[in-house]
Amino acid sequence: DTSLKVFTLNSNPKLAEDIAAHIGTNLGKCTVSRFSDGEIQINIEESVRGCDVYVVQSTCSPVNQHIMELLIMIDALKRASAKSINIVMPYYGYARQDRKARSREPIAAKLVANLLETSGSDRVITLDLHAPQIQGFFDIPIDHLQGVPILSDYFEKKNLEDIIIMSPDHGGVTRARKMADRLKAPIGIIDKRRPRPNVAEVMNIVGNIEGKTAILIDDIIDTAGTITLAANALVENGAKEVYACCTHPVLSGPAIERIDNSRIKELVVTNSIPLPEEKQLEKITELSVAPLIGEAIIRVHELQSVSILFD
Amino acid sequence: DTSLKVFTLNSNPKLAEDIAAHIGTNLGKCTVSRFSDGEIQINIEESVRGCDVYVVQSTCSPVNQHIMELLIMIDALKRASAKSINIVMPYYGYARQDRKARSREPIAAKLVANLLETSGSDRVITLDLHAPQIQGFFDIPIDHLQGVPILSDYFEKKNLEDIIIMSPDHGGVTRARKMADRLKAPIGIIDKRRPRPNVAEVMNIVGNIEGKTAILIDDIIDTAGTITLAANALVENGAKEVYACCTHPVLSGPAIERIDNSRIKELVVTNSIPLPEEKQLEKITELSVAPLIGEAIIRVHELQSVSILFD
Ligand SMILES: Nc1ncnc2c1ncn2[C@@H]1O[C@H](COP(=O)(O)O)[C@@H](O)[C@H]1O
Ligand SMILES: Nc1ncnc2c1ncn2[C@@H]1O[C@H](COP(=O)(O)O)[C@@H](O)[C@H]1O
Repeated sequence: DTSLKVFTLNSNPKLAEDIAAHIGTNLGKCTVSRFSDGEIQINIEESVRGCDVYVVQSTCSPVNQHIMELLIMIDALKRASAKSINIVMPYYGYARQDRKARSREPIAAKLVANLLETSGSDRVITLDLHAPQIQGFFDIPIDHLQGVPILSDYFEKKNLEDIIIMSPDHGGVTRARKMADRLKAPIGIIDKRRPRPNVAEVMNIVGNIEGKTAILIDDIIDTAGTITLAANALVENGAKEVYACCTHPVLSGPAIERIDNSRIKELVVTNSIPLPEEKQLEKITELSVAPLIGEAIIRVHELQSVSILFD
Repeated sequence: DTSLKVFTLNSNPKLAEDIAAHIGTNLGKCTVSRFSDGEIQINIEESVRGCDVYVVQSTCSPVNQHIMELLIMIDALKRASAKSINIVMPYYGYARQDRKARSREPIAAKLVANLLETSGSDRVITLDLHAPQIQGFFDIPIDHLQGVPILSDYFEKKNLEDIIIMSPDHGGVTRARKMADRLKAPIGIIDKRRPRPNVAEVMNIVGNIEGKTAILIDDIIDTAGTITLAANALVENGAKEVYACCTHPVLSGPAIERIDNSRIKELVVTNSIPLPEEKQLEKITELSVAPLIGEAIIRVHELQSVSILFD
């Protein structure tokens, strides 16, 4: 049996600790700091020779620094003779640049996949990719975990009555359907469209929300413009109350203020991205993905160990 | 004849403009901005199909952001069918992480080389690499330009008398020798050593500096600790006055204050890295590498065009 080691970089040390605890181990010793000029300096302070190593790093903001920390760590682990280098990336930065929408655009999500492979990763464990097609950007195995069960379980325990699961746009209907299946609820869609160019979008609510408790679900909440406008439209059109949830709380720019000032009663998120510490987050509930990721690591490691028997 | 296009990213737009002017062209149209969450957004606003493209970007601070800008730009150019993608990187970030000095260290300079190749670069034009061995980290052609002639010419025109070229450490003697050859001057070395562990370093000056004008030369001045201590030691040991020069003015942390408070009379640098705009830089003279790089691009492009004849 090869030994398993979990390391954290700077994006998500608390989650990494919880994952290690779930597995029944401690985090590997490693310091990740910066030189005076801002270059990243990594010192791995224990042997990893022959080990299956799991590196926990979400590529959330500051995204470019977190990506480079990850690539430099992978380089160091490879040169230190780790047996396998497994990337645990709960939030996959640049996932929204997943196609050429216009001429001469980059596909940064594919670039990131190439960078991870080139630097020497053997496997990626991730959560709710913005587009599931990103799995196909990799030639190495990728485990794609889902946040919907965790979010659904939370709402199930709340025992809310007469609920409807709402997708804030067309792209998210499949996700809303999955949650609705688990909660045995109907679904609805916010059908945004622009009647003519340079005219404000119209929010058309598809589904019967009258007197109901609406739960908006999305994968990413970034500036929170879409979700707060949707929530307000739901209340104005007869919903009794509105909850919102997402896997990845990017929450950049005016997000927190918008949520506070919106008709959203409670926003439920996971810890794939840590919440800002310095702000009041009265409406936000954070659920942990540590058990989900911990179980995935245990399963992957069992398979890796088993494969040794056949080596 | 394929057409040549020069693009700039955010590290060094002024240098890029000067390079384009030297070649007799304008910069290609492109916007490089950030989304609300800090992810880089690149829009190339003119066709590059079938063109030889030169992208000017020093990977100076913020280094990780500048590296990612470059990689995403390369990805976009590749997908836009550029004929060749040539990276003009006057300053090569992470060059000092060029070997494993201790166990389990990364070799980030090699990682950067791999990232540039993976993303689709065809060629790299760079200046005074911290270690010339970094050329061997690439499998694509790399043009390695030298700053010594530019720095030497400047001092030659000053008509200083009785000069000695000083290397601030053992690693820089070859560079000092090159400058001394051009200026027909003797060389000296600051021979630092630590008599016993946990005892302050001793600065032993090798060479006759009595009454002379010393010119310290280094490749990178980062926090300016080494160079200012060396300058002060030279004056205290009998040098008449001390100039300093380097190719890459990283100047992080306390560098500017240290230089101002030191016995350095004038510090001569190149614009491989732009100087901080917000500070008073009374002692610093900046020389342009735009003509040097412009000429290199013209030569490379002639060869690339010629090769078409044989395709
Ligand atoms: N970091 C980002 N922040 C905001 N918008 C983005 C970001 N990255 C990509 N996009 C844009 O988001 C759109 C993709 O989102 P979607 O249509 O929901 O898949 C594209 O138009 C992208 O240009
Ligand atoms: N960005 C940096 N700032 C300061 N020191 C660095 C940096 N990158 C690498 N180093 C260290 O500088 C040394 C290499 O410098 P040198 O011996 O002059 O080639 C190594 O000990 C590195 O750990």
